[in-house]
Amino acid sequence: MSAALRIGVFDSGFGGLTVLRELLPQVPQAEFFYVGDTARLPYGSKSRATIARYAVESAQFLVAQGIEYLVIACNTASALAIEEIRAAVRVPVLGVIETGAASAAAISRSRDVLVLATDATVQSHAYAQACAQHGLRALEKACPLLVPLIEEGWTEHPVTAEVLRIYLHEALEQAQAAQMQPDTVLLGCTHYPLLRPLLERTLPVSMRILDSAATTAESVHRDLQARSMLPAQVITRLHAAAEAPSASRCHFYATDSIEKFQRLGSRFLGQAMHSVTLMDIGG
Amino acid sequence: MSAALRIGVFDSGFGGLTVLRELLPQVPQAEFFYVGDTARLPYGSKSRATIARYAVESAQFLVAQGIEYLVIACNTASALAIEEIRAAVRVPVLGVIETGAASAAAISRSRDVLVLATDATVQSHAYAQACAQHGLRALEKACPLLVPLIEEGWTEHPVTAEVLRIYLHEALEQAQAAQMQPDTVLLGCTHYPLLRPLLERTLPVSMRILDSAATTAESVHRDLQARSMLPAQVITRLHAAAEAPSASRCHFYATDSIEKFQRLGSRFLGQAMHSVTLMDIGG
Repeated sequence: MSAALRIGVFDSGFGGLTVLRELLPQVPQAEFFYVGDTARLPYGSKSRATIARYAVESAQFLVAQGIEYLVIACNTASALAIEEIRAAVRVPVLGVIETGAASAAAISRSRDVLVLATDATVQSHAYAQACAQHGLRALEKACPLLVPLIEEGWTEHPVTAEVLRIYLHEALEQAQAAQMQPDTVLLGCTHYPLLRPLLERTLPVSMRILDSAATTAESVHRDLQARSMLPAQVITRLHAAAEAPSASRCHFYATDSIEKFQRLGSRFLGQAMHSVTLMDIGG
Repeated sequence: MSAALRIGVFDSGFGGLTVLRELLPQVPQAEFFYVGDTARLPYGSKSRATIARYAVESAQFLVAQGIEYLVIACNTASALAIEEIRAAVRVPVLGVIETGAASAAAISRSRDVLVLATDATVQSHAYAQACAQHGLRALEKACPLLVPLIEEGWTEHPVTAEVLRIYLHEALEQAQAAQMQPDTVLLGCTHYPLLRPLLERTLPVSMRILDSAATTAESVHRDLQARSMLPAQVITRLHAAAEAPSASRCHFYATDSIEKFQRLGSRFLGQAMHSVTLMDIGG
């Protein structure tokens, strides 16, 4: 295992574990190093300068662990700090926003996309810019209550259904006012895949849901192949349904309570988490 | 003004401004120094060690500004770090929890109190311990969704009413199971005073609401008198209704976005905020 490709995954907290969950079957021979900056979450309500400082610290920590590839599995950090992170480390860096926009471009017929995200991600307009590069128009809708509702465990709760209904109603009104006809919903926060069943029941059937966890894992696999970073024998991907990939080849680092990270995190990862290490990065 | 009593007020964010709002008429001649550690909020989801480290840094910053008295207007920091703060600074330190428990003891007839608070405050059982010292039993109920709902501005929203109804229903069921009859509700989070109108409509009329902002301001005034820290001519308090106290004798420091601090903070303070300074305390 010492020769395995080392991939770093960074998030402000637990949400990025939905990305790691998708990465496990996509890159089965890699060893993963995950940092959740739980002591300083949520990033979504913080300023660009603060977010960039935090994200660069975590990226440098991961590089010190010997990673050869870095996935920014945090929408807020991808939106506000990807350039600072790229400038600070020498390994390839892929963020969830660019991969989400590319996937939306591949499936949208109307060329209008609805992006659901946190306040900071929306205010950055990073999705609108990334979508514009693919000839898509993006309507960005801030949904600040969804993360706390998910962390409360209310992923199938009537209150969450009502909050979603309100947010989607407001978004579709704004779309109409802007003469947009979104046919694709991009989940611009790595917590949101846990709301997918509820979203599917709430959205018009004509709209397709793309979550940035799945699109990012696919993009990472493609990018690793393009960079010849995958040994030949690894090209065949595991299929999640056929073979449950194990988190035993993952190393987890959290900047706050290990116990809470394991308890909440396992919901996002879809399996129990072992070997979580407390990481002191100052602050 | 250079001879004015300097009082420090510390919170992880905006909520402590509800305490400052009550302090302004209570101690009209003082000069106030407020720190909102907005870059690292919310404290409610973090571990004791992390919270203590953050709170001590802010307390030391305030002491360096020449404060002679420190109010910990953050329930989580009062619950988890008051001893560490007292050990780190030489000025008197008063926390919202001890004052809330004392006020509840003064009015409860059934000697049972319902405390609504964040997860971390509840898990610390600091309110139960403080109440026990006054011969009160406390039922502590974690309400993690209330802060995000308040910060979304949904203080009169049907969704917030429903969330409150669910939390209160669960709490009253737990009270019944524990054979408790709470007649007093202690708002154990400085955000919650903004929900007071909604709470008054949701609670049984027999229950009285105590918010820790008001009780803390009264306790600070009493403590300053007891310590002879108030000049004789200042003993007469202003009455908020008669004379609107101004925030011009306040200095605000935030560890993140000044613009957001002013925008959100004015809701909690009840007036516009000037002279907010960005404070870099590392991290």
